[in-house]
Amino acid sequence: MKILTIDTSSNCSSVALSDGTKLLGECILGEDRCNSGRLMGSISDLLAAAKLTPAALDAFAVSLGPGSFTGVRVGIATAKGLSLATGKPAIGFSSLAMLAMNLPHASLPVAPLFDARKSEVYAGLYRCDGLPTALMPDAVLPPADFLASIGSPAIFLGEGSVRYRALIDSTLGEKAVFAPWSADLPRASAGALIALEKGLRGEFTPLALLNPAYLRASEAEIAKRKRDAEKAA
Amino acid sequence: MKILTIDTSSNCSSVALSDGTKLLGECILGEDRCNSGRLMGSISDLLAAAKLTPAALDAFAVSLGPGSFTGVRVGIATAKGLSLATGKPAIGFSSLAMLAMNLPHASLPVAPLFDARKSEVYAGLYRCDGLPTALMPDAVLPPADFLASIGSPAIFLGEGSVRYRALIDSTLGEKAVFAPWSADLPRASAGALIALEKGLRGEFTPLALLNPAYLRASEAEIAKRKRDAEKAA
Repeated sequence: MKILTIDTSSNCSSVALSDGTKLLGECILGEDRCNSGRLMGSISDLLAAAKLTPAALDAFAVSLGPGSFTGVRVGIATAKGLSLATGKPAIGFSSLAMLAMNLPHASLPVAPLFDARKSEVYAGLYRCDGLPTALMPDAVLPPADFLASIGSPAIFLGEGSVRYRALIDSTLGEKAVFAPWSADLPRASAGALIALEKGLRGEFTPLALLNPAYLRASEAEIAKRKRDAEKAA
Repeated sequence: MKILTIDTSSNCSSVALSDGTKLLGECILGEDRCNSGRLMGSISDLLAAAKLTPAALDAFAVSLGPGSFTGVRVGIATAKGLSLATGKPAIGFSSLAMLAMNLPHASLPVAPLFDARKSEVYAGLYRCDGLPTALMPDAVLPPADFLASIGSPAIFLGEGSVRYRALIDSTLGEKAVFAPWSADLPRASAGALIALEKGLRGEFTPLALLNPAYLRASEAEIAKRKRDAEKAA
Protein backbone atom coordinates (compact mmCIF):
# COMPACT_ATOMS: atom_id res chain seq x y z
CA MET A 1 0.00 0.00 0.00
CA LYS A 2 1.62 3.23 -1.22
CA ILE A 3 0.77 6.13 1.09
CA LEU A 4 1.61 9.82 0.99
CA THR A 5 1.48 11.20 4.54
CA ILE A 6 1.25 14.91 5.31
CA ASP A 7 1.69 16.81 8.55
CA THR A 8 1.37 20.56 8.92
CA SER A 9 -0.17 20.60 12.38
CA SER A 10 2.59 22.71 13.95
CA ASN A 11 4.65 25.50 12.44
CA CYS A 12 6.67 22.83 10.64
CA SER A 13 5.70 20.81 7.60
CA SER A 14 6.59 17.24 6.90
CA VAL A 15 5.78 14.78 4.12
CA ALA A 16 6.55 11.06 3.88
CA LEU A 17 6.15 8.62 1.03
CA SER A 18 5.96 4.94 1.88
CA ASP A 19 5.32 1.64 0.11
CA GLY A 20 4.05 -0.91 2.61
CA THR A 21 6.60 -1.06 5.40
CA LYS A 22 9.25 0.69 3.34
CA LEU A 23 9.90 4.39 3.70
CA LEU A 24 10.68 5.78 0.22
CA GLY A 25 11.45 9.28 1.42
CA GLU A 26 10.65 12.04 3.86
CA CYS A 27 11.04 15.78 3.87
CA ILE A 28 10.76 17.91 7.02
CA LEU A 29 10.90 21.69 7.09
CA GLY A 30 11.23 23.34 10.48
CA GLU A 31 9.69 26.36 12.07
CA ASP A 32 8.26 29.09 9.86
CA ARG A 33 8.94 27.12 6.67
CA CYS A 34 5.40 25.83 6.57
CA ASN A 35 3.43 27.22 3.69
CA SER A 36 1.47 25.58 0.95
CA GLY A 37 4.12 26.37 -1.67
CA ARG A 38 6.83 24.54 0.26
CA LEU A 39 4.44 21.70 1.09
CA MET A 40 3.54 21.06 -2.55
CA GLY A 41 7.22 21.38 -3.47
CA SER A 42 8.16 18.69 -0.95
CA ILE A 43 5.39 16.40 -2.22
CA SER A 44 6.50 16.87 -5.83
CA ASP A 45 10.15 16.27 -4.97
CA LEU A 46 9.41 13.05 -3.08
CA LEU A 47 7.14 11.71 -5.83
CA ALA A 48 9.72 12.60 -8.50
CA ALA A 49 12.56 10.89 -6.59
CA ALA A 50 10.45 7.73 -6.32
CA LYS A 51 9.28 8.03 -9.94
CA LEU A 52 5.64 8.01 -8.81
CA THR A 53 2.59 10.17 -9.51
CA PRO A 54 -0.34 10.86 -7.15
CA ALA A 55 -2.47 8.50 -9.27
CA ALA A 56 -0.06 5.64 -8.49
CA LEU A 57 -0.66 5.93 -4.75
CA ASP A 58 -3.21 3.95 -2.73
CA ALA A 59 -4.11 6.43 0.01
CA PHE A 60 -3.43 9.92 1.38
CA ALA A 61 -2.88 10.28 5.10
CA VAL A 62 -2.91 13.46 7.13
CA SER A 63 -2.63 14.57 10.74
CA LEU A 64 -5.93 16.04 11.93
CA GLY A 65 -4.42 17.99 14.81
CA PRO A 66 -4.50 19.17 17.45
CA GLY A 67 -2.20 22.00 16.48
CA SER A 68 -2.07 25.21 14.49
CA PHE A 69 -5.58 25.88 13.15
CA THR A 70 -4.33 27.19 9.83
CA GLY A 71 -1.67 24.49 9.55
CA VAL A 72 -4.11 21.67 10.19
CA ARG A 73 -6.51 23.15 7.65
CA VAL A 74 -3.78 23.40 4.99
CA GLY A 75 -2.78 19.77 5.55
CA ILE A 76 -6.32 18.43 5.43
CA ALA A 77 -7.21 20.54 2.38
CA THR A 78 -4.15 19.21 0.54
CA ALA A 79 -4.97 15.60 1.42
CA LYS A 80 -8.61 16.09 0.40
CA GLY A 81 -7.57 17.61 -2.91
CA LEU A 82 -5.23 14.74 -3.71
CA SER A 83 -7.82 12.19 -2.61
CA LEU A 84 -10.63 13.77 -4.62
CA ALA A 85 -8.49 14.14 -7.75
CA THR A 86 -7.24 10.55 -7.69
CA GLY A 87 -10.28 8.80 -6.23
CA LYS A 88 -8.01 7.20 -3.58
CA PRO A 89 -9.11 7.14 0.07
CA ALA A 90 -7.93 9.35 2.93
CA ILE A 91 -6.72 8.42 6.41
CA GLY A 92 -6.57 10.75 9.42
CA PHE A 93 -4.57 10.44 12.64
CA SER A 94 -3.69 12.41 15.78
CA SER A 95 -0.75 14.78 15.47
CA LEU A 96 0.20 14.04 19.09
CA ALA A 97 0.24 10.26 18.53
CA MET A 98 2.50 10.90 15.52
CA LEU A 99 4.89 13.07 17.54
CA ALA A 100 5.00 10.48 20.34
CA MET A 101 6.19 7.87 17.83
CA ASN A 102 9.46 9.78 17.45
CA LEU A 103 10.38 7.70 20.52
CA PRO A 104 9.44 4.14 19.58
CA HIS A 105 10.13 1.60 22.34
CA ALA A 106 10.76 4.40 24.81
CA SER A 107 11.52 3.26 28.32
CA LEU A 108 8.80 5.52 29.80
CA PRO A 109 5.43 6.94 28.73
CA VAL A 110 5.89 9.69 26.15
CA ALA A 111 4.35 13.15 26.55
CA PRO A 112 4.21 15.04 23.23
CA LEU A 113 3.52 18.75 23.63
CA PHE A 114 2.67 21.44 21.09
CA ASP A 115 2.54 25.07 22.12
CA ALA A 116 -1.15 26.03 21.89
CA ARG A 117 -0.48 29.74 22.70
CA LYS A 118 -2.71 31.52 25.25
CA SER A 119 -0.54 29.86 27.94
CA GLU A 120 -1.83 26.41 27.00
CA VAL A 121 -0.41 23.26 25.41
CA TYR A 122 -1.84 20.53 23.25
CA ALA A 123 -0.75 17.48 25.19
CA GLY A 124 -1.03 13.72 25.11
CA LEU A 125 0.45 10.78 26.97
CA TYR A 126 1.33 7.65 25.04
CA ARG A 127 2.96 4.29 25.45
CA CYS A 128 5.05 3.77 22.31
CA ASP A 129 5.70 0.04 21.97
CA GLY A 130 5.16 -0.83 18.32
CA LEU A 131 2.23 1.51 17.79
CA PRO A 132 1.19 4.43 20.02
CA THR A 133 -1.34 3.63 22.76
CA ALA A 134 -3.06 6.67 24.29
CA LEU A 135 -2.85 6.64 28.10
CA MET A 136 -5.13 9.68 28.27
CA PRO A 137 -7.10 11.61 25.64
CA ASP A 138 -5.34 14.39 23.71
CA ALA A 139 -6.18 17.65 25.44
CA VAL A 140 -5.62 21.41 25.40
CA LEU A 141 -4.90 22.85 28.83
CA PRO A 142 -2.46 24.97 30.85
CA PRO A 143 0.87 23.12 31.11
CA ALA A 144 0.69 23.17 34.93
CA ASP A 145 -2.65 21.29 34.80
CA PHE A 146 -1.19 18.71 32.44
CA LEU A 147 1.85 18.20 34.66
CA ALA A 148 -0.39 17.82 37.72
CA SER A 149 -2.21 14.98 35.95
CA ILE A 150 1.01 13.01 35.30
CA GLY A 151 1.83 10.83 38.27
CA SER A 152 4.73 8.75 37.00
CA PRO A 153 7.93 9.65 35.11
CA ALA A 154 7.55 10.56 31.43
CA ILE A 155 9.66 11.62 28.46
CA PHE A 156 8.70 15.03 27.07
CA LEU A 157 9.16 16.13 23.48
CA GLY A 158 7.97 18.69 20.97
CA GLU A 159 8.05 22.48 20.74
CA GLY A 160 5.76 22.73 23.78
CA SER A 161 8.28 20.86 25.91
CA VAL A 162 11.01 23.25 24.76
CA ARG A 163 8.94 26.31 25.59
CA TYR A 164 7.84 25.05 29.03
CA ARG A 165 10.99 23.15 29.97
CA ALA A 166 11.71 25.21 33.10
CA LEU A 167 8.16 24.67 34.39
CA ILE A 168 8.30 20.93 33.64
CA ASP A 169 11.67 20.65 35.38
CA SER A 170 10.60 22.57 38.46
CA THR A 171 7.28 20.68 38.73
CA LEU A 172 8.38 17.11 38.07
CA GLY A 173 12.08 17.19 38.93
CA GLU A 174 13.69 13.83 38.21
CA LYS A 175 10.41 12.42 36.95
CA ALA A 176 10.81 14.52 33.78
CA VAL A 177 13.07 13.25 31.00
CA PHE A 178 13.54 15.23 27.79
CA ALA A 179 13.96 13.74 24.32
CA PRO A 180 17.05 14.81 22.39
CA TRP A 181 16.35 17.93 20.30
CA SER A 182 16.60 15.97 17.04
CA ALA A 183 13.31 14.26 18.00
CA ASP A 184 11.34 17.45 18.70
CA LEU A 185 9.91 18.01 15.22
CA PRO A 186 6.87 16.01 14.11
CA ARG A 187 7.71 13.48 11.39
CA ALA A 188 5.22 12.41 8.77
CA SER A 189 6.98 9.00 8.62
CA ALA A 190 5.75 8.28 12.15
CA GLY A 191 2.27 9.22 10.95
CA ALA A 192 2.73 6.85 8.00
CA LEU A 193 3.26 4.01 10.48
CA ILE A 194 -0.14 4.74 12.08
CA ALA A 195 -1.75 5.31 8.67
CA LEU A 196 -0.57 1.96 7.27
CA GLU A 197 -2.14 0.10 10.20
CA LYS A 198 -5.42 1.96 9.67
CA GLY A 199 -5.26 1.40 5.91
CA LEU A 200 -4.69 -2.34 6.31
CA ARG A 201 -7.76 -2.48 8.57
CA GLY A 202 -9.77 -0.48 6.01
CA GLU A 203 -10.17 2.46 8.39
CA PHE A 204 -10.49 5.18 5.76
CA THR A 205 -12.31 8.45 6.45
CA PRO A 206 -14.90 9.78 3.97
CA LEU A 207 -13.74 13.21 2.79
CA ALA A 208 -16.81 14.93 4.26
CA LEU A 209 -15.82 13.61 7.68
CA LEU A 210 -12.08 14.33 7.41
CA ASN A 211 -12.18 17.22 9.87
CA PRO A 212 -9.69 18.97 12.15
CA ALA A 213 -9.37 17.84 15.77
CA TYR A 214 -8.93 21.37 17.07
CA LEU A 215 -9.95 20.48 20.65
CA ARG A 216 -10.90 24.11 21.28
CA ALA A 217 -12.98 26.76 19.55
CA SER A 218 -11.29 29.18 17.17
CA GLU A 219 -10.91 32.89 17.96
CA ALA A 220 -13.70 33.65 15.49
CA GLU A 221 -16.04 31.13 17.13
CA ILE A 222 -15.29 32.47 20.61
CA ALA A 223 -15.94 36.04 19.40
CA LYS A 224 -19.21 34.99 17.74
CA ARG A 225 -20.42 33.17 20.87
CA LYS A 226 -19.63 36.29 22.92
CA ARG A 227 -21.55 38.51 20.47
CA ASP A 228 -24.51 36.11 20.46
CA ALA A 229 -24.51 36.00 24.27
CA GLU A 230 -24.42 39.80 24.44
CA LYS A 231 -27.30 40.04 21.95
CA ALA A 232 -29.35 37.50 23.93
CA ALA A 233 -28.69 39.35 27.22
CA MET B 1 26.30 26.53 15.67
CA LYS B 2 24.77 25.98 12.22
CA ILE B 3 25.61 22.51 10.91
CA LEU B 4 24.82 20.73 7.66
CA THR B 5 24.87 16.97 8.28
CA ILE B 6 25.14 14.42 5.48
CA ASP B 7 24.65 10.66 5.47
CA THR B 8 25.00 8.44 2.42
CA SER B 9 26.44 5.40 4.20
CA SER B 10 23.67 3.02 3.09
CA ASN B 11 21.69 2.95 -0.14
CA CYS B 12 19.68 5.90 1.21
CA SER B 13 20.71 9.51 1.44
CA SER B 14 19.79 11.95 4.12
CA VAL B 15 20.65 15.57 4.86
CA ALA B 16 19.83 17.68 7.91
CA LEU B 17 20.27 21.37 8.58
CA SER B 18 20.37 22.52 12.20
CA ASP B 19 21.02 25.70 14.16
CA GLY B 20 22.16 24.83 17.67
CA THR B 21 19.54 22.53 19.13
CA LYS B 22 16.98 23.49 16.50
CA LEU B 23 16.37 21.30 13.47
CA LEU B 24 15.72 23.60 10.51
CA GLY B 25 14.96 20.80 8.06
CA GLU B 26 15.73 17.27 6.95
CA CYS B 27 15.40 15.37 3.71
CA ILE B 28 15.64 11.58 3.49
CA LEU B 29 15.55 9.60 0.26
CA GLY B 30 15.14 5.84 0.54
CA GLU B 31 16.70 2.91 -1.20
CA ASP B 32 18.25 3.42 -4.62
CA ARG B 33 17.63 7.17 -4.55
CA CYS B 34 21.16 7.85 -3.38
CA ASN B 35 23.20 9.60 -5.99
CA SER B 36 25.22 12.77 -5.94
CA GLY B 37 22.65 14.69 -8.00
CA ARG B 38 19.86 13.97 -5.52
CA LEU B 39 22.18 14.66 -2.58
CA MET B 40 23.17 18.09 -3.87
CA GLY B 41 19.52 18.79 -4.73
CA SER B 42 18.47 18.00 -1.16
CA ILE B 43 21.24 20.20 0.25
CA SER B 44 20.24 23.09 -2.02
CA ASP B 45 16.54 22.72 -1.16
CA LEU B 46 17.19 22.73 2.59
CA LEU B 47 19.50 25.73 2.41
CA ALA B 48 17.02 27.62 0.22
CA ALA B 49 14.11 26.89 2.58
CA ALA B 50 16.17 28.22 5.49
CA LYS B 51 17.43 31.17 3.43
CA LEU B 52 21.03 30.14 4.13
CA THR B 53 24.14 29.61 2.01
CA PRO B 54 27.03 27.19 2.69
CA ALA B 55 29.18 30.16 3.70
CA ALA B 56 26.71 31.00 6.50
CA LEU B 57 27.20 27.60 8.16
CA ASP B 58 29.66 26.84 10.97
CA ALA B 59 30.51 23.20 10.25
CA PHE B 60 29.86 20.27 7.92
CA ALA B 61 29.20 16.87 9.48
CA VAL B 62 29.23 13.50 7.76
CA SER B 63 28.86 9.84 8.63
CA LEU B 64 32.15 8.02 8.08
CA GLY B 65 30.58 4.57 7.82
CA PRO B 66 30.63 1.68 8.12
CA GLY B 67 28.39 1.12 5.14
CA SER B 68 28.37 1.23 1.35
CA PHE B 69 31.93 1.96 0.19
CA THR B 70 30.78 4.19 -2.66
CA GLY B 71 28.09 5.83 -0.56
CA VAL B 72 30.47 6.68 2.28
CA ARG B 73 32.97 8.08 -0.21
CA VAL B 74 30.31 10.29 -1.86
CA GLY B 75 29.23 11.67 1.52
CA ILE B 76 32.75 12.40 2.72
CA ALA B 77 33.76 13.93 -0.62
CA THR B 78 30.74 16.24 -0.49
CA ALA B 79 31.47 17.32 3.09
CA LYS B 80 35.16 17.87 2.26
CA GLY B 81 34.23 19.98 -0.78
CA LEU B 82 31.87 22.16 1.24
CA SER B 83 34.40 22.45 4.07
CA LEU B 84 37.28 23.35 1.76
CA ALA B 85 35.22 25.90 -0.20
CA THR B 86 33.92 27.69 2.88
CA GLY B 87 36.89 27.28 5.23
CA LYS B 88 34.52 25.84 7.87
CA PRO B 89 35.52 22.70 9.81
CA ALA B 90 34.30 19.13 9.33
CA ILE B 91 32.98 16.63 11.87
CA GLY B 92 32.79 12.85 11.37
CA PHE B 93 30.68 10.28 13.22
CA SER B 94 29.74 6.59 13.10
CA SER B 95 26.84 5.69 10.81
CA LEU B 96 25.77 2.97 13.26
CA ALA B 97 25.70 5.37 16.22
CA MET B 98 23.55 7.67 14.09
CA LEU B 99 21.12 4.86 13.17
CA ALA B 100 20.88 3.76 16.81
CA MET B 101 19.73 7.27 17.76
CA ASN B 102 16.50 6.69 15.83
CA LEU B 103 15.46 5.12 19.15
CA PRO B 104 16.35 7.73 21.76
CA HIS B 105 15.54 6.66 25.33
CA ALA B 106 14.90 3.11 24.15
CA SER B 107 14.00 0.67 26.90
CA LEU B 108 16.73 -1.80 25.77
CA PRO B 109 20.15 -1.65 24.12
CA VAL B 110 19.80 -0.82 20.42
CA ALA B 111 21.40 -2.95 17.69
CA PRO B 112 21.67 -1.05 14.38
CA LEU B 113 22.41 -3.31 11.40
CA PHE B 114 23.36 -2.48 7.82
CA ASP B 115 23.52 -5.22 5.21
CA ALA B 116 27.25 -5.56 4.37
CA ARG B 117 26.62 -8.11 1.56
CA LYS B 118 28.81 -11.25 1.39
CA SER B 119 26.52 -12.70 4.12
CA GLU B 120 27.76 -10.17 6.66
CA VAL B 121 26.37 -7.18 8.53
CA TYR B 122 27.79 -3.95 9.84
CA ALA B 123 26.61 -4.06 13.41
CA GLY B 124 26.82 -2.11 16.62
CA LEU B 125 25.24 -2.17 20.06
CA TYR B 126 24.37 1.11 21.75
CA ARG B 127 22.67 2.48 24.80
CA CYS B 128 20.66 5.48 23.59
CA ASP B 129 19.97 7.70 26.60
CA GLY B 130 20.60 11.26 25.53
CA LEU B 131 23.58 10.48 23.32
CA PRO B 132 24.58 7.05 21.97
CA THR B 133 27.03 5.06 24.11
CA ALA B 134 28.76 2.17 22.34
CA LEU B 135 28.43 -1.10 24.30
CA MET B 136 30.76 -2.83 21.81
CA PRO B 137 32.85 -1.56 18.90
CA ASP B 138 31.18 -1.28 15.46
CA ALA B 139 32.03 -4.45 13.54
CA VAL B 140 31.54 -6.32 10.27
CA LEU B 141 30.74 -10.00 10.76
CA PRO B 142 28.27 -12.76 9.88
CA PRO B 143 24.91 -11.99 11.51
CA ALA B 144 24.99 -15.31 13.41
CA ASP B 145 28.29 -14.30 15.06
CA PHE B 146 26.86 -10.94 16.06
CA LEU B 147 23.74 -12.54 17.52
CA ALA B 148 25.89 -15.02 19.47
CA SER B 149 27.71 -12.08 21.07
CA ILE B 150 24.49 -10.48 22.35
CA GLY B 151 23.55 -11.88 25.72
CA SER B 152 20.63 -9.71 26.75
CA PRO B 153 17.51 -8.48 24.94
CA ALA B 154 18.00 -5.78 22.29
CA ILE B 155 16.01 -3.72 19.81
CA PHE B 156 17.07 -4.28 16.21
CA LEU B 157 16.72 -1.75 13.43
CA GLY B 158 18.03 -0.91 9.98
CA GLU B 159 18.02 -2.63 6.59
CA GLY B 160 20.24 -5.42 7.98
CA SER B 161 17.61 -6.27 10.58
CA VAL B 162 14.95 -6.43 7.88
CA ARG B 163 17.05 -8.75 5.72
CA TYR B 164 18.03 -11.08 8.58
CA ARG B 165 14.82 -10.85 10.61
CA ALA B 166 14.05 -14.59 10.40
CA LEU B 167 17.54 -15.48 11.62
CA ILE B 168 17.37 -12.93 14.45
CA ASP B 169 13.94 -14.25 15.48
CA SER B 170 14.98 -17.89 15.44
CA THR B 171 18.24 -17.22 17.29
CA LEU B 172 17.11 -14.82 20.00
CA GLY B 173 13.37 -15.54 20.26
CA GLU B 174 11.73 -13.19 22.74
CA LYS B 175 15.03 -11.43 23.42
CA ALA B 176 14.75 -9.78 19.99
CA VAL B 177 12.55 -6.70 19.59
CA PHE B 178 12.20 -4.93 16.25
CA ALA B 179 11.87 -1.19 15.75
CA PRO B 180 8.86 0.01 13.76
CA TRP B 181 9.66 0.20 10.04
CA SER B 182 9.47 4.01 10.07
CA ALA B 183 12.70 3.99 12.14
CA ASP B 184 14.71 1.75 9.79
CA LEU B 185 16.25 4.44 7.59
CA PRO B 186 19.29 6.36 8.84
CA ARG B 187 18.47 10.01 9.62
CA ALA B 188 21.03 12.78 9.28
CA SER B 189 19.21 14.65 12.09
CA ALA B 190 20.34 11.95 14.53
CA GLY B 191 23.86 12.47 13.21
CA ALA B 192 23.44 16.21 13.74
CA LEU B 193 22.80 15.51 17.42
CA ILE B 194 26.17 13.73 17.72
CA ALA B 195 27.87 16.35 15.54
CA LEU B 196 26.69 19.26 17.68
CA GLU B 197 28.14 17.65 20.82
CA LYS B 198 31.46 17.14 19.05
CA GLY B 199 31.37 20.65 17.61
CA LEU B 200 30.76 22.22 21.02
CA ARG B 201 33.77 20.28 22.37
CA GLY B 202 35.87 21.45 19.39
CA GLU B 203 36.27 17.90 18.10
CA PHE B 204 36.69 18.76 14.43
CA THR B 205 38.56 16.48 12.02
CA PRO B 206 41.23 17.92 9.69
CA LEU B 207 40.15 17.19 6.09
CA ALA B 208 43.23 15.02 5.45
CA LEU B 209 42.12 12.75 8.30
CA LEU B 210 38.40 12.69 7.44
CA ASN B 211 38.46 9.10 6.21
CA PRO B 212 35.94 6.28 5.76
CA ALA B 213 35.51 3.74 8.56
CA TYR B 214 35.08 0.82 6.16
CA LEU B 215 35.99 -1.84 8.79
CA ARG B 216 36.98 -4.22 6.00
CA ALA B 217 39.17 -4.10 2.91
CA SER B 218 37.60 -3.25 -0.45
CA GLU B 219 37.26 -5.81 -3.27
CA ALA B 220 40.10 -4.06 -5.11
CA GLU B 221 42.38 -4.24 -2.06
CA ILE B 222 41.58 -7.93 -1.49
CA ALA B 223 42.33 -8.68 -5.18
CA LYS B 224 45.59 -6.72 -5.02
CA ARG B 225 46.72 -8.54 -1.86
CA LYS B 226 45.93 -11.86 -3.55
CA ARG B 227 47.91 -10.88 -6.66
CA ASP B 228 50.84 -9.68 -4.53
CA ALA B 229 50.79 -12.93 -2.53
CA GLU B 230 50.74 -15.00 -5.73
CA LYS B 231 53.64 -12.98 -7.14
CA ALA B 232 55.61 -13.46 -3.91
CA ALA B 233 54.93 -17.22 -3.88
